Amino acid sequence: MNIIVDAMGGDNAPLEIIKGAVEARNEYNIDITLVGREDVIKSVAAENAIDISGMEIINASEVIATDEEADSVLKKKPDSSIAVGLRTLSEGTGDAFVSAGNSGALCVGGTLITKRIKGVKRPGFAPIMPHFGGGCFMLIDAGANLEARPEMLLQYALMGSAYMKNVMKVDNPRVGLANVGTEKHKGLELQHKAYELLEDADINFIGNVEGRDLPYGCCDVVVCDGFIGNVILKTYEGTAKAIMGKIKTLFSKSAKSKLAAALVMNDLKEMVKEFDYHEYGGAPIMGTAKPVFKAHGSSKAKTVKNAIRLTKEYVEADVINEITNALKRG
Amino acid sequence: MNIIVDAMGGDNAPLEIIKGAVEARNEYNIDITLVGREDVIKSVAAENAIDISGMEIINASEVIATDEEADSVLKKKPDSSIAVGLRTLSEGTGDAFVSAGNSGALCVGGTLITKRIKGVKRPGFAPIMPHFGGGCFMLIDAGANLEARPEMLLQYALMGSAYMKNVMKVDNPRVGLANVGTEKHKGLELQHKAYELLEDADINFIGNVEGRDLPYGCCDVVVCDGFIGNVILKTYEGTAKAIMGKIKTLFSKSAKSKLAAALVMNDLKEMVKEFDYHEYGGAPIMGTAKPVFKAHGSSKAKTVKNAIRLTKEYVEADVINEITNALKRG
Repeated sequence: MNIIVDAMGGDNAPLEIIKGAVEARNEYNIDITLVGREDVIKSVAAENAIDISGMEIINASEVIATDEEADSVLKKKPDSSIAVGLRTLSEGTGDAFVSAGNSGALCVGGTLITKRIKGVKRPGFAPIMPHFGGGCFMLIDAGANLEARPEMLLQYALMGSAYMKNVMKVDNPRVGLANVGTEKHKGLELQHKAYELLEDADINFIGNVEGRDLPYGCCDVVVCDGFIGNVILKTYEGTAKAIMGKIKTLFSKSAKSKLAAALVMNDLKEMVKEFDYHEYGGAPIMGTAKPVFKAHGSSKAKTVKNAIRLTKEYVEADVINEITNALKRG
Repeated sequence: MNIIVDAMGGDNAPLEIIKGAVEARNEYNIDITLVGREDVIKSVAAENAIDISGMEIINASEVIATDEEADSVLKKKPDSSIAVGLRTLSEGTGDAFVSAGNSGALCVGGTLITKRIKGVKRPGFAPIMPHFGGGCFMLIDAGANLEARPEMLLQYALMGSAYMKNVMKVDNPRVGLANVGTEKHKGLELQHKAYELLEDADINFIGNVEGRDLPYGCCDVVVCDGFIGNVILKTYEGTAKAIMGKIKTLFSKSAKSKLAAALVMNDLKEMVKEFDYHEYGGAPIMGTAKPVFKAHGSSKAKTVKNAIRLTKEYVEADVINEITNALKRG
């Protein structure tokens, strides 16, 4: 298996990406192709004594910044690491593409360069989120398409179920429709129509879910339009991060509070770990014809390695084929 | 001043409502009119030795449950405590109405029974939310109208600014537009058009805000359509509650963790208090012709008292008049 990795994407590129890629190659026995500025990759590896010998490097002269317009990937920066990586994947050289770079560019590029699975209306951006039940759930779509039609939500549900079952090993994944209340009649026309489609589909649909139920692991796949999903993603992560930060400050305030921290250190670490997105590695772009995976923008080597492992499992479980079949069944 | 209080609304009615109302009457030197089943109110007060002598009670034979359809307030349950309370207010007997009952019924009833301020398109449900900067912000609309037009968002901003300035004593309240990114071009047509209206309005508009900025107190008024607002409200409160619960469990796990808790108890209490919605009391329904205030559904006496205090200030600051003038200025 050959996984193409964007060496230039994310806050800690290229050093942490290269590190994580090398660790993944050694641990998982796979080939890695790095995409990015070859001179930079080679010099950073040399400076940090990272052995990248035997690793293919495909040169890409440009980088798309995190806050850049998503469609730069198409015309403005055709030689960006994301565009080159996705083209390489599309042309058949590798099995999957992993990037910690611009999410929007990955969604647009994944859709238009790598192309969609036959029948998929719109690929969805699908972060894997930790919850306090000790597991995780997929949120789809978290921003690839701000607006959605009911059939898109159905496809998100089918694709999300296939991923959670085959990659995250969740038996009979529970699908919830993000809404403003749990009763069937809640929401707008999109939710009403999607509810009916989801009820009739060959999935484990559990009905409407609310933001307040997500931290408790109420379901395994949450479907919604990209606007709602993006709001959930950022509010959920942001609130958790703010409280964790508050707790950290509290425990480092005085000698007394540091002693308290020492007493509960293991439990605290366990809690932080449970809610740490770095453990989960990122977000697949669901619906592209070949696996495209977004690692968290702040990824360090460990997260990159995790993302590559998940992508390897995404390829091995043949999720693309599972999705193709699920879409045919409807 | 005479504040009408729904004795039957919320999880802890009528006991905690009656308690809070009596405390508020004694502390703030105001009149309270209780609305609800007179026999129940009198017997609960007597059983709990609460002195309600001299307090007017208006009988209302029905109660709208929390999960009931919002429009029950109009035809199905015309003798519910919410309908009777709002009618009493509308007919001129009291200065404001406070209820911990069904939010939807309060919004619908507030709009159609109490009527709107002249010029207001749609009243908004506007919870006051705590943040970790040590203050609070108003989220408007959190569900009164799932869909919104740009002019509605402008009105929410004008009404929210008037409330935060005059009741919450925030100098020059900062208004943010909830969106999927901070850049001006982000979002859909609603956000694009609202952004332009907000830029031109006589308010302190700071641009787009994201869910991840809210816990840090990025602004004082967050405007959005009711679907987005409801999702933010529930995700924000739910995530905070889940983590607080987790911390509580962690600290009561063993003798060692209980000792740790004792060491940081004051700071922990401070943190919990900072994020406690009971401190803020609830949500005004902004845009009704007379003040209508929703206390949190799980309100205990203290929260009810707080809600009544905020409502008293809502009346005293003449926010209705401020809003009328702000709408004229545009």
